[in-house]
Amino acid sequence: MEEKVHIVALLGSFRTGSFNKIILDSAIEMCPESATIEKAEIANLPLYNGDFEGNMPQEVKNFKEKIKSADAILIVSPEYNYSIPGGLKNALDWGSRPYGDNSFDRKPVGLMTASPGSLGGSRCQYHLRQCIVFLNMFAFNTPEVMVGNVQEKVTDDGKLKDQHTRDKILEYLLALIDWTGKTKLLA
Amino acid sequence: MEEKVHIVALLGSFRTGSFNKIILDSAIEMCPESATIEKAEIANLPLYNGDFEGNMPQEVKNFKEKIKSADAILIVSPEYNYSIPGGLKNALDWGSRPYGDNSFDRKPVGLMTASPGSLGGSRCQYHLRQCIVFLNMFAFNTPEVMVGNVQEKVTDDGKLKDQHTRDKILEYLLALIDWTGKTKLLA
Amino acid sequence: MEEKVHIVALLGSFRTGSFNKIILDSAIEMCPESATIEKAEIANLPLYNGDFEGNMPQEVKNFKEKIKSADAILIVSPEYNYSIPGGLKNALDWGSRPYGDNSFDRKPVGLMTASPGSLGGSRCQYHLRQCIVFLNMFAFNTPEVMVGNVQEKVTDDGKLKDQHTRDKILEYLLALIDWTGKTKLLA
Amino acid sequence: MEEKVHIVALLGSFRTGSFNKIILDSAIEMCPESATIEKAEIANLPLYNGDFEGNMPQEVKNFKEKIKSADAILIVSPEYNYSIPGGLKNALDWGSRPYGDNSFDRKPVGLMTASPGSLGGSRCQYHLRQCIVFLNMFAFNTPEVMVGNVQEKVTDDGKLKDQHTRDKILEYLLALIDWTGKTKLLA
Repeated sequence: MEEKVHIVALLGSFRTGSFNKIILDSAIEMCPESATIEKAEIANLPLYNGDFEGNMPQEVKNFKEKIKSADAILIVSPEYNYSIPGGLKNALDWGSRPYGDNSFDRKPVGLMTASPGSLGGSRCQYHLRQCIVFLNMFAFNTPEVMVGNVQEKVTDDGKLKDQHTRDKILEYLLALIDWTGKTKLLA
Repeated sequence: MEEKVHIVALLGSFRTGSFNKIILDSAIEMCPESATIEKAEIANLPLYNGDFEGNMPQEVKNFKEKIKSADAILIVSPEYNYSIPGGLKNALDWGSRPYGDNSFDRKPVGLMTASPGSLGGSRCQYHLRQCIVFLNMFAFNTPEVMVGNVQEKVTDDGKLKDQHTRDKILEYLLALIDWTGKTKLLA
Repeated sequence: MEEKVHIVALLGSFRTGSFNKIILDSAIEMCPESATIEKAEIANLPLYNGDFEGNMPQEVKNFKEKIKSADAILIVSPEYNYSIPGGLKNALDWGSRPYGDNSFDRKPVGLMTASPGSLGGSRCQYHLRQCIVFLNMFAFNTPEVMVGNVQEKVTDDGKLKDQHTRDKILEYLLALIDWTGKTKLLA
Repeated sequence: MEEKVHIVALLGSFRTGSFNKIILDSAIEMCPESATIEKAEIANLPLYNGDFEGNMPQEVKNFKEKIKSADAILIVSPEYNYSIPGGLKNALDWGSRPYGDNSFDRKPVGLMTASPGSLGGSRCQYHLRQCIVFLNMFAFNTPEVMVGNVQEKVTDDGKLKDQHTRDKILEYLLALIDWTGKTKLLA
């Protein structure tokens, strides 16, 4: 029996009614049999401060362990001020440190963004892709998931109702799972 | 008597021995008579969470007031993972919210970055410039300050000793002060 | 009687039925009384080669003269391969050279992009904004014009029929004209 | 006997004394036994124009054939106006067209940039990386070659004399050759 692909997800928005939380929840709900998706807690991390690298806070240790346990990373995020939300970037910064202990090293990674505007958070994705170069993760090129006008695609009780978007998310998960298998060959 | 230009500075690194803190401190030390530089506290801000927009934490209120009091903003920062440090981005995110109360709106802004590598934090600067478009601040094009190999340019007790870099910083401050005066004409 | 603002436009697509040509033509058609828009020829420029800087081809000389004659520049372009079309970038490269004779220096500039996808050419715009820093042009932050799904917004005979987009273009031209006046104060 | 890895190189500068030509020539000179490097001619391509997609110019056909024959692509380029040189981008644009005939599809790719400034053309590299996503090429994360202050690293007769840079180039070629082998497993 083959092991399931263990995907750890980072959610870039921390508010209760987050549209991106709806996107992530729908990905979890639709997750293929061959994988599992677990959320990593990042809203409880302190702000990164290099002074604490020698004595990492417990929340950071837990976060880094969870990342290291992952077969693949999935980032689901809004775009804040045409870039990556500070809280999400803070998690990436902790995960990459201290020098020589980059928890993200060589992990396959997928990106989904959603926003109320028509651009669907794309400006966040390309900044993330630049970070991914330094984090030394394996990103794939296609497909890309950028959900624009997301407020029109969800129900009042927080479900993703738009079938086209649901199809895209499932297609993306299958691509991430496939990519995860392939990147093992890159070792 | 003319009013001094009041510059509020955001420091992107929170560690005690930060090279960028040395850069900012040297800017404060060299600050021309026509201006003052005050640091804004951003290391104590909570992670941005939209749930708290209706009832902003006191630290956020204080931060936003300080930004609003500024004639100009100066960002001094390292580059983390080829982009903006999460803690600095978190401050920008709070400052821009809630919708309709963007504290950075129409402020002139200057950027300085420093790093141990030869690129001097430039990858952070261009991501910041993209944020600045949405934050609706006024950035100028030239000069740019990107201090590479910064560890070779400071003393053991944390002073900036490199004269070329000192000259660049003074030139930059004069440009920011000049720009601040000019942008008032854009109103 | 006040002088009209003379806008010189660069079109990033060279094909006959270009959607961006339709956008530019509609801008010309709607141009306010206070301005004129003239297209610069860039499809006839040779590929930039530093060897010819001492003896610029006549087409390049003409192009540089036209840019210099402008009160403002308007770039209208598709996005090619998630960035600036090579032909448009080639014109920017010629215009910036030789060293010391940057024809774009201190010109106010506006950007419009259109594409068949939902992102409306935005990835081209942010790369252009990075070029604009070095070209030392004055870009404004808002509004932005990114026309997505452009094929649905034009008639079979090449007119822009979508009223919302027409309104956005007019608003943008008024903003560019206003900005052009203000940037004269920055001199 | 194993087949040699056939690398096709694109040079972003067309001037005779180009520093990046020196970099590419030194890469060719140092090329390991297991690979060959062939330059593709791109300075003779017309400016991309969609009207000619149905009847591609012969130079474009030749260029596309050469790209398709490659096991890997190597781009060596300066940075123009904080981005990709127009002439290089023009070659990428032709190579990607017409729709459905992207010559770069699934090719492994390496990037080297050099510039007289201290940033070594890095701003070109990150714009190229964004193009590479759409071109659907396989880029690797590390190492990166950005040769700053290149004028100090060459002889008067156009040889790369700086040993550190020579070592970096050889290391990079070995990484590209290794990557080329691995990406075959991604098919």
